Order: sequence, then C-alpha cells, then structure tokens
Amino acid sequence: MKTIKIFAPATVANLSCGFDVLGCCLDTIGDEMVISITDQQGVRITKIDGADLPMETHKNVAGVAVEALLVALGKTEIGVDIEIYKKIKAGSGIGSSAASSAGAVWAVNHLLGNPCTPQELVAFAMVGEKLASGNAHADNVAPALLGGFTLVRSYTPLDVLKLHTPQDLVMTVIHPQIEVKTSDSRSVIKQNVSLKQAITQWGNLGGLVTGLFTEDYELIGRSLEDVIIEPLRSILIPEFQQVKEAALSTGALGCGISGSGPSIYALSKGLETAEKVSNAIRDVYQKTGLDFDIHVSKINAEGVKIMNYPEA
Amino acid sequence: MKTIKIFAPATVANLSCGFDVLGCCLDTIGDEMVISITDQQGVRITKIDGADLPMETHKNVAGVAVEALLVALGKTEIGVDIEIYKKIKAGSGIGSSAASSAGAVWAVNHLLGNPCTPQELVAFAMVGEKLASGNAHADNVAPALLGGFTLVRSYTPLDVLKLHTPQDLVMTVIHPQIEVKTSDSRSVIKQNVSLKQAITQWGNLGGLVTGLFTEDYELIGRSLEDVIIEPLRSILIPEFQQVKEAALSTGALGCGISGSGPSIYALSKGLETAEKVSNAIRDVYQKTGLDFDIHVSKINAEGVKIMNYPEA
Repeated sequence: MKTIKIFAPATVANLSCGFDVLGCCLDTIGDEMVISITDQQGVRITKIDGADLPMETHKNVAGVAVEALLVALGKTEIGVDIEIYKKIKAGSGIGSSAASSAGAVWAVNHLLGNPCTPQELVAFAMVGEKLASGNAHADNVAPALLGGFTLVRSYTPLDVLKLHTPQDLVMTVIHPQIEVKTSDSRSVIKQNVSLKQAITQWGNLGGLVTGLFTEDYELIGRSLEDVIIEPLRSILIPEFQQVKEAALSTGALGCGISGSGPSIYALSKGLETAEKVSNAIRDVYQKTGLDFDIHVSKINAEGVKIMNYPEA
Repeated sequence: MKTIKIFAPATVANLSCGFDVLGCCLDTIGDEMVISITDQQGVRITKIDGADLPMETHKNVAGVAVEALLVALGKTEIGVDIEIYKKIKAGSGIGSSAASSAGAVWAVNHLLGNPCTPQELVAFAMVGEKLASGNAHADNVAPALLGGFTLVRSYTPLDVLKLHTPQDLVMTVIHPQIEVKTSDSRSVIKQNVSLKQAITQWGNLGGLVTGLFTEDYELIGRSLEDVIIEPLRSILIPEFQQVKEAALSTGALGCGISGSGPSIYALSKGLETAEKVSNAIRDVYQKTGLDFDIHVSKINAEGVKIMNYPEA
C-alpha cells in the first residue's frame, strides 16, 4: 500500500473583474487528506473528519473525481482509500468542494507516478464540482491544482492557464457564517449586460493580468473592479460595502466577493497591510453580532502540497 | 527654428477579443510628417500631400491635437508648422487620423524636450480622434504613441498600458477599397450582450494578454476570437469569411476586423508565414474585382519614429 498525506488548499474564485475565469490559491487554509492506493479494487471514503459529508463514493466529490481519473487512466482495477480532514467550511465561498476533489485526484495521480499534468487533472476534479453544484466549473479546482493565479480561458475545449504570481500579494478573507442559498446568488445575476459594462470589465481583466505579469501592484489594485456581478450579489452579504471601504481605506489593493460569497476577499501588498486589513474588517463585523472567521494567507504558488509520505 | 521629420505609424485597433481596448502598432505603413517649432505664434498646417484633408488648424486632427498639447503645457506663445505626407488612406480602418494626431503631438513634445511621457500624450492625440469621429477613443493613438500592443484599461481616469510584444509577430492587413459608413458599422452593434458571451470574450482577452507576456504564440492564436462584434460587423466586409478561412488555413495565428473595418488583419508567427497569408488573401480578393491594398508588417514596438532631424 502506498499512502500520501496532502494539504488541499482553499481558493478564491471570481476575482472581481475575473468573474467565472480567474481564481487564486491560498496557503494557510485548506483541508488535509490521506490517500492510499490499495489492492482492494474500488474507491472508498474511509474517514471524514470535521464535516458532515457523504461517505458513499458516488455522492462524495473526492470519490467521483478519483473514479473519473481512474477510468480515464484505465486503472479501475486498483483500490483507493480516502480520508478527509475537513478544515474549510462548506458553503463558505472559498472552494471547499474543490479542495476535496482537487486534492484527491492530485494525490492519486502522484501515487501513480504522475501520468497526468496538473492541467490535465482539472477536468477530473471538475467532475467533483459538477456533483457539488450541478455545474462543472473550473475556477476553484484550477488554482487548487496549479497554484497561484489561474485563468480558465475556455471550457470548449478546456484551456486553463497559470499566470504569474507576484510574491508580495497577501489575501485577507472573511467568512461570515451565514447561508447564502446558491439559488439566490444565481438568481440575482442578470443574463444580459450592457456592452459598455462588458468592455469596462474586460479592460480591467486585461489590466489585472498585465499587473500580475509585470508585478505592478498599483495596477493590480486599480484593475480589481467588478461592474457587473458585485453590484448585484453584494446585497446578499451583510455589511459588504462597509467591509470593502474598511479594507481599501486600510491599504488593501482591492476587495470583492470570493466565489459566489458569502466570503469577502481583500488583496494587499505585504503581510503587514493584510493584517491591518484583517483588523479593520474584524472591527466592522464584530458590530454585526454574526459569527465569522478571518484568514490571512500568502498566495500559494504551488497548489496541493505533500505533508508527508509514509511508505507502507 | 527646430524641425523634425517623423514616421507616424498605422495601427490595428479592436483586436478581436480586445474590442475597444486592445491595439497594436505597424512598422511598414504610416504617414510622414515634418514638424517645426517657429517664433510665429499659432499652429499651422502648411502642407498636406496625398489626401484631401482640411488645412484649417481647427478642422485638422493634427492641428487640434497640437493646440490641446500647447494649452496644457502653457506654451501657446510658440508657433508650430505641420506638413503631412499622407500614406494611410482615410477610412481604411488602420488608424489614419490617429497617425496624424499622434505623430503631431509626439513631434512637438520631442522638439520641446519631452515635457510629457508617451502615456501623457495619449489624451492630447485623443482630441484629434474626437474631431475625426466624434468619439475621443484611444485605441489607435495609444499604440501609435507607445508602440507594440497597448491596452486601454480605463477612460475615467485614462489608463493606457503597454503590453509585451513577442518579436516574431507579423501582421498581414488587407484594405478593401470600399466605403463602410461609420453609421453602419456602429448601428450593427448591439448595446446589450449575453453574460455568457461577455465571459467568453474576457476569458479570451485574458488569454491573449497572457500569450503576449509569455510569448506563447499558440495561446495568442487560440485567444484571438471575437464572439460579440465580429459576427455582426463582418457582414459589412465583402468576402470576410473567405479571407479569414484562407488566412487561418495558411497558418495565421488569428484573423479579424481591423478597427471598425473594412480592413482585415491576420497575425502570424514569422515573416514567411505572413507573406504566405498575404498571397492567400490576395487570391481571395482578386476574384472580387474590388480594388485593395495588402500590407505585411512586423509589430512596431517603438511607435512614432524620427526619420531625420535637420536643425535650422
């Protein structure tokens, strides 16, 4: 039996102007998973700690993702045992399901001698996303697998790009512990946008990608604007505007909704600013009486990581 | 009197997915201009060769652009004489008016010891664009002034970025000598687009910018797609689809409408492919009986260039 223990990172998708295409990978928040290759045919979820998630393989995002990988590799004769130590809360908007499915396929691929590239693994992890949300989106599994900032250029065919990650970028993420129904966060979005707004959005996306490649932090900041989705979805998140104002006035480069919410991200240059932003956001939220978590994290340029590797 | 002779380059704007934001600068097609600083107060158009354009300063794009620059610099007491040797045909869709206004402000700024950066000159050249089309757009004057590929991230405030230019990119541009009325090319555009199409467009724009910075020619090629404007505007350009098919099947990375047409651009890797593309496009157009020009040009990473500098 070969066993590996991994860190499966949380991710921030829908980064402002990069709605549906741009995401990034976090470093200090993520699940742990222990994955083993066994000689007992079939994929099994052998343990789930920290969350109430299905143990049945076909109902578990990690289970279905690994099954899809094994089918593609023609390796359905092997056995895989999956233990999940969940640290990312479900429904938080920082890629909880993506961490499980990305982590699982990455670990199995690694144990099998890396027959697939991280890019190729994205499609299998997306099978987990489809189970979780009904939509096989890649904007969380791509940064979890590739690390850093990723762009989903196209789904047909799937084309996922790894961008450059300036070293000093640090995320502050607040997770207000409220439930935003997926149906609500979807229904507020309009299916048509004005061409003018669309041009503003893609101008900013071009600016953001340029800022990442040229390590121009100011440019990254002024490009982190979302004129299409944020004005609609932010009404579902208590104190969103106050959090954003607090973050920006404390020195954050940009601030917006993480995923489809309710988490809010703020991106800063340097850990010191990100910590100040964390304090400013905390001050805003403590007045609401709502429960919340705040995380401060460098951008994880690597993605899924090995925690140790006990051979058995 | 100080005199300078310059090359004022043609430009390709609205590069497929980069509608209204992305343009690039050509190297083998452009106007020549001779600009002199005199002690006779006022801006004068002293010669126009090759086109029937207004000699009155306030009706000439170069005239109004230079006047705007002098006002901003507090230099209205000086005199400027402008000779224009027009090589770019008006209405061609490769930045004819932009070449004149960008060339003029660049030359005057140079003769005055460069008080403005190229980025700062964009706003003054835009005054010429406003006179020419009623719309102070920057997507041609920006690449003419900065060279290479440029992105207009925002107009309020104006934020123009220079991107990276991979050395091997070569443009083939065909200019069918037909008139496409500005009112027609505007009226076919819809003021609303589906969110789905907009996401496809900004995914491609992100891919294109990434391809430029990473010099990934294949990525540049597969990102050069326009799902919003091209399907509507291309119907105004005879044989557009045939030209595009000929260009792509001959090895062009991408092909689309230049500016608002009627010119069509094809971008290739290497001069040899660009010449083959030129021949293939010529074959298509010769059958139409329409007059046309074809240009092959490397990307001009520099922008406006000095041709000589006779001090008098």
